[in-house]
Amino acid sequence: MKKRYVMLCTLATVLCLGAHAQNTEPASSDLTRYVNPFIGTGAIDASSLSGSNFPGATLPFGFVQLSPDTEDGPDNPASGYDYNDKTIVGFSHTHLSGTGVSDLFDVMLMPTTGKIQSVPGKAETPGSGYRSRFSHDQESAEVGYYQVKLLDYDINAELTATEHAGYHRYRFPKTDQAHIVIDLNHTLNKKRPYWSCKVIDAEIRQIDPYTVEGYRVLTGWAQLRKVYFYATFSEPIISSELFNGGSMYANEKIVNGTNVRAVLNFNTGNGKPVLVRVGLSEVSPSGAKANLEAEVGQKSFDQIRQEAKAKWQEQLSNITIEGTKEQKEIFYTGLYHAYTQPNNLADVNGDYMATDYTIKNAPDKTHYSTFSLWDTYRAAHPLYTLLKPKKDAAFIRSMIRQYETFGYLPIWQLWGEENYCMIGNHAIPVIVDAIFKGIQGIDVEKAYEAVKQSSVTSHPGSPFNLWDQYHYMPENKQSQSVSITLEMAYDDWCVAMLAKKLGKDEDYQYFLNRSGYYKNLFNKNTGFFQARDDKGNWLPDFNPLAYGGNGGNPFTEGNGWQYLWYVPQDVQGLIALEGGKAGFSAKLDTFFTLKDLPKEVNGNASGFIGQYAHGNEPSHHVTYLYDYVGQPWKTQYYVAKVLRELYNNSFSGYSGNEDCGQMSSWYIFSAMGFYPVNPASGKYEIGSPILSSATIRLDNGRVFKMTAKNVSEQNVYIQSVKLNGKSYNKPYILHSDIENGATLEFVMGAKPNKKWGQDLTGLD
Amino acid sequence: MKKRYVMLCTLATVLCLGAHAQNTEPASSDLTRYVNPFIGTGAIDASSLSGSNFPGATLPFGFVQLSPDTEDGPDNPASGYDYNDKTIVGFSHTHLSGTGVSDLFDVMLMPTTGKIQSVPGKAETPGSGYRSRFSHDQESAEVGYYQVKLLDYDINAELTATEHAGYHRYRFPKTDQAHIVIDLNHTLNKKRPYWSCKVIDAEIRQIDPYTVEGYRVLTGWAQLRKVYFYATFSEPIISSELFNGGSMYANEKIVNGTNVRAVLNFNTGNGKPVLVRVGLSEVSPSGAKANLEAEVGQKSFDQIRQEAKAKWQEQLSNITIEGTKEQKEIFYTGLYHAYTQPNNLADVNGDYMATDYTIKNAPDKTHYSTFSLWDTYRAAHPLYTLLKPKKDAAFIRSMIRQYETFGYLPIWQLWGEENYCMIGNHAIPVIVDAIFKGIQGIDVEKAYEAVKQSSVTSHPGSPFNLWDQYHYMPENKQSQSVSITLEMAYDDWCVAMLAKKLGKDEDYQYFLNRSGYYKNLFNKNTGFFQARDDKGNWLPDFNPLAYGGNGGNPFTEGNGWQYLWYVPQDVQGLIALEGGKAGFSAKLDTFFTLKDLPKEVNGNASGFIGQYAHGNEPSHHVTYLYDYVGQPWKTQYYVAKVLRELYNNSFSGYSGNEDCGQMSSWYIFSAMGFYPVNPASGKYEIGSPILSSATIRLDNGRVFKMTAKNVSEQNVYIQSVKLNGKSYNKPYILHSDIENGATLEFVMGAKPNKKWGQDLTGLD
Repeated sequence: MKKRYVMLCTLATVLCLGAHAQNTEPASSDLTRYVNPFIGTGAIDASSLSGSNFPGATLPFGFVQLSPDTEDGPDNPASGYDYNDKTIVGFSHTHLSGTGVSDLFDVMLMPTTGKIQSVPGKAETPGSGYRSRFSHDQESAEVGYYQVKLLDYDINAELTATEHAGYHRYRFPKTDQAHIVIDLNHTLNKKRPYWSCKVIDAEIRQIDPYTVEGYRVLTGWAQLRKVYFYATFSEPIISSELFNGGSMYANEKIVNGTNVRAVLNFNTGNGKPVLVRVGLSEVSPSGAKANLEAEVGQKSFDQIRQEAKAKWQEQLSNITIEGTKEQKEIFYTGLYHAYTQPNNLADVNGDYMATDYTIKNAPDKTHYSTFSLWDTYRAAHPLYTLLKPKKDAAFIRSMIRQYETFGYLPIWQLWGEENYCMIGNHAIPVIVDAIFKGIQGIDVEKAYEAVKQSSVTSHPGSPFNLWDQYHYMPENKQSQSVSITLEMAYDDWCVAMLAKKLGKDEDYQYFLNRSGYYKNLFNKNTGFFQARDDKGNWLPDFNPLAYGGNGGNPFTEGNGWQYLWYVPQDVQGLIALEGGKAGFSAKLDTFFTLKDLPKEVNGNASGFIGQYAHGNEPSHHVTYLYDYVGQPWKTQYYVAKVLRELYNNSFSGYSGNEDCGQMSSWYIFSAMGFYPVNPASGKYEIGSPILSSATIRLDNGRVFKMTAKNVSEQNVYIQSVKLNGKSYNKPYILHSDIENGATLEFVMGAKPNKKWGQDLTGLD
Repeated sequence: MKKRYVMLCTLATVLCLGAHAQNTEPASSDLTRYVNPFIGTGAIDASSLSGSNFPGATLPFGFVQLSPDTEDGPDNPASGYDYNDKTIVGFSHTHLSGTGVSDLFDVMLMPTTGKIQSVPGKAETPGSGYRSRFSHDQESAEVGYYQVKLLDYDINAELTATEHAGYHRYRFPKTDQAHIVIDLNHTLNKKRPYWSCKVIDAEIRQIDPYTVEGYRVLTGWAQLRKVYFYATFSEPIISSELFNGGSMYANEKIVNGTNVRAVLNFNTGNGKPVLVRVGLSEVSPSGAKANLEAEVGQKSFDQIRQEAKAKWQEQLSNITIEGTKEQKEIFYTGLYHAYTQPNNLADVNGDYMATDYTIKNAPDKTHYSTFSLWDTYRAAHPLYTLLKPKKDAAFIRSMIRQYETFGYLPIWQLWGEENYCMIGNHAIPVIVDAIFKGIQGIDVEKAYEAVKQSSVTSHPGSPFNLWDQYHYMPENKQSQSVSITLEMAYDDWCVAMLAKKLGKDEDYQYFLNRSGYYKNLFNKNTGFFQARDDKGNWLPDFNPLAYGGNGGNPFTEGNGWQYLWYVPQDVQGLIALEGGKAGFSAKLDTFFTLKDLPKEVNGNASGFIGQYAHGNEPSHHVTYLYDYVGQPWKTQYYVAKVLRELYNNSFSGYSGNEDCGQMSSWYIFSAMGFYPVNPASGKYEIGSPILSSATIRLDNGRVFKMTAKNVSEQNVYIQSVKLNGKSYNKPYILHSDIENGATLEFVMGAKPNKKWGQDLTGLD
């Protein structure tokens, strides 16, 4: 095992830098077998949501995700693959995992045989000429590997990947009519006008019988993407057709255009598979080639597949658990989904495209993107701080690079560019949390500058001029005003805490004051946070059940009930607003039991328990709030219910979009028995563990071990807890306790022990 | 004078390298006073075309053209300025001169006073909030300088430019409400869906009270443009409003978005003008700053204005003429228009964006673009070979760079990118002509490779697979088939000639054979070139008067009559097709006198003499064809008629779009008495000189002098010609004669001398 890691280090030094430290503990047995890449790839019925995950091959935090697409113009699910679909249109090299919006799908390859049915590019559904039926019976996937039989062509297709390259192995039948289609016009649904998706320019160039390169430049959800590829083939291309829209050119060496494809023809009469290695770059053609040479070179498909597996094992192995097979599958697939992004956009030499569309070089050779921060600041980034602190520091360095060229930190950063999806400035809690946890590799003064400037520089969704003027967001000046007010107040609290730590007292007072602005939207008459206009009037006809989406309503992808609980920085203040502990817990009880729904529910709200909707993020911390009012057994009840009822190990294993690791991270934390209500507080509120044990080999060499005696489907209630062997009665633990190395022993039972968890010291 | 040039060389060494050689002849007196930048800036009435020129400030072949825009979403005229308009919306830094399609208009500044009338960005007509009336009485322009009084604001605005920078001097009234608007959303008409114009991303950032930088990235006629700017102000910005669409942020330091503007506020109570220096780059923010510092630095407005004038004088001064003031104005303004592009896109350090959207470095520090080759290969490039051979070599090196990354030479290259406007591959005659004329600085083998590959690699408008299969373009497979067939045959002849010169006999035979394919579309029954389908059938209902545009018809921006004459490589072959000299000249007579027009004329066809339309390029060589059949007096008659009736020195001085120097180059050549019917033949056919003399100080140090004794409005007929003192009876002269240094003496008279010009030796 050790030997293999040493060998790996010659390939991907950067990845291994962390690995050496992590592997001071003995390596675990194969954990990758618990990863089931099909989890989250489909909805069980039309009323539910797909996790929007993809089943294809990727490395941890890799640039490339090589995966089958079942949709021509992928739109929903955003991953391009729907488990319920019956045909595959091709294998593209980049995908989003778990998002609600689609993009990427770069450089699609599709092997076919026989006569090409229709001219690619003629139809609006470009793939229709060469799509193939497939069956889940003849499909398989594991970490870094995907396989499917293309039934219409009798081709067995296998995929594996390095960080910047895809590796395809196509076993064709013996034929002189074997084809590989390269489609550079495969992209998200061009008919969704709000993304204005458009391929601006593309090129395919055949260099020799074994080599093809090209690129496409496009605008979509990410404003501008340049995607270069360099592909080598193990068998000679005997002839080709290049397409520019409806124009076909036989055996040309180059084609430019906006709707560009190639049909490369092979003779597979010798029975040998056709291997295709495809290097990608967001920087340059030479970058794509260099990436391929550095990572793949002359290695075989099986070698790369083994390396991919070893890299996943390396990433997964610092946490080992005991639990059922299903729990292990959900847990490790969750880690797999959490580690599928952020993605390192930089070439192997560190070059990347900055937000100003110039090429810069990252000294640490990594530039991460795909920051779905409204989702991931809640639990995914806290998970990285716990399990992958070096990575988290690299993520934060990448975020700060956006500040340097763009003036403020990422909100939702895709392909290195801001897309302003969702609300808040939740890079701030991510950065503040990491600094408070003492994670190395962050320039703290520069980070504070970025955090502060992001909190005073007005930008879409964050009009700080209004914030300073009104002390709340007036809905008539800024839509989604209640959600923004609440979430901005939280971010401000994070800024205040960091300012205090750094001795910036004036800033501390200013931001601490702003963090209390949430109170200005609490309507004592209704007991809810409600929208006001710029005159201070409450907006009429408030209905706490009514949903908002992403504009045009005071609430963001939620309703008044769900946003009622969003004061993670000041739960005590919220309790006071709601009339003290009794009123607060009574309202929570109603929240979890009130089944009424308005006519229209936002599409992202799913996984309901009363008004609680686990399928989307605004609810994620709410089960844990009972801990604050001395009723931790209710937290335990609902956490266990969510863990057991709203997760499973099937293709529809999530109750909503998996959201770039957030849905999984909720499970991973909660399964171990704790979850960060306020992700920058350094605290984890205790819920109801589902695993009988979990052992984390921390980056600092210490070990944290949690056990849950007697845990079972019935035994969801905590009877007692010991921390480092001593009785522990607080409903939370500190990150510092974990970091110091600790044992946390739960004893579980079928009935609540209402005496446990009553020491609320420190829960302020 | 000499001293000033030495000083200039410290500023712009590259430009001066050529100047030293050119200035071995004594410097001429000030020629810039003959340049009237208003020529070509408007149409005289709705039935005519604007030259599409702009009146603003630019340097020869400069990256920046700083000019007023009278249209919010400029579309027609493409220059953004219509002399007939009454208001100015602002001053933007990049413009096209003479094109039929609009683009650029980057980084628009507008000075205003008082309360801004409406929120910029709210309306679809973004400039409406700050446009101002102006009057031609209070407007002036000369080379490198433009001035206008903005009547609504009582602001005198002056503009000058360096190669990469604009320099503004705004004299405001004394007020504490002086504003300068920066509008990054000013672009071509976004409602013309066929260009899909869209600002993808933009940023404005205030660095300090005297400095603002930013960029915009957009798609339009040029697929993808990145435009960075760095602006310094002589007076402090006392406050600002930044706009992102309808959102206004006061005194922020940065704004990002797609509809981004800034209103910068100044106090002009001290009566000082506000000077704004704006560096531009297509590469990077640092490039924009470096360009500004290298070219402007701390120089005053007047210094830069003087330098601009000197640089124009330097470019104009190797040709001096005698003629009327109007002739001199048309002539030197024509040279000015010819030298306004191609434009050097490279930063001062040589960095430029290649067609694959990567940044490369040009060893010669220049990368030229704006190649309107369907227009300019005819006479503008031959003019460069004669007057600016070093520049022409640099243009050709830039074109070959497209071949290297794009696979074929430019057709219409804008901002370094192919836009496939118009037909043919007329970089080929440009390159072949330059090589045959012995112009230094071209890698001939690489050039041949580029020329040949561009002639065998199928691409939009050039399906060589069809060409090889059918030996003509079948209209049902390739629209504009007659025009493409004719023009492709000409390009093939050019390839053949170069192949022959380089000893590539097989290629020579192949391309020479292809150059005769034009005959396959000549319908002997009608006497016209007509379209056939892929079965070989003539398309029905042929009407030689019927116009085509840019697709959907066999003819390109012309009709059967105009394209009848397009066989410049084989006029003798064309004469034979038309039944010999008598038939040919009779048909020419009809062409120039037949006044019938079909219901619809292509918008580019204008300046009619019978079917001859001087306002567009297909006609440009036709007046000279009488030379080939022993009737040179008819050439003289029609050439003189065009020179005197279809050019003038008013704002509507051209009979159609000026087309990046082609319309002017026709005048410049013809005014001296000759014009290249086949621009790659090394020959110039003799017409009717309008100048009494023209002296060219050639790049090789020799002098060519043409005189026309007795020339006048009546005396348009050549009585006799002497070349180097010897009687000369050929209706053409050779480029080699000119290059050797020569005197060409015309004697003109009111009646044709039908004996002159009858030696047709060499006119094959």
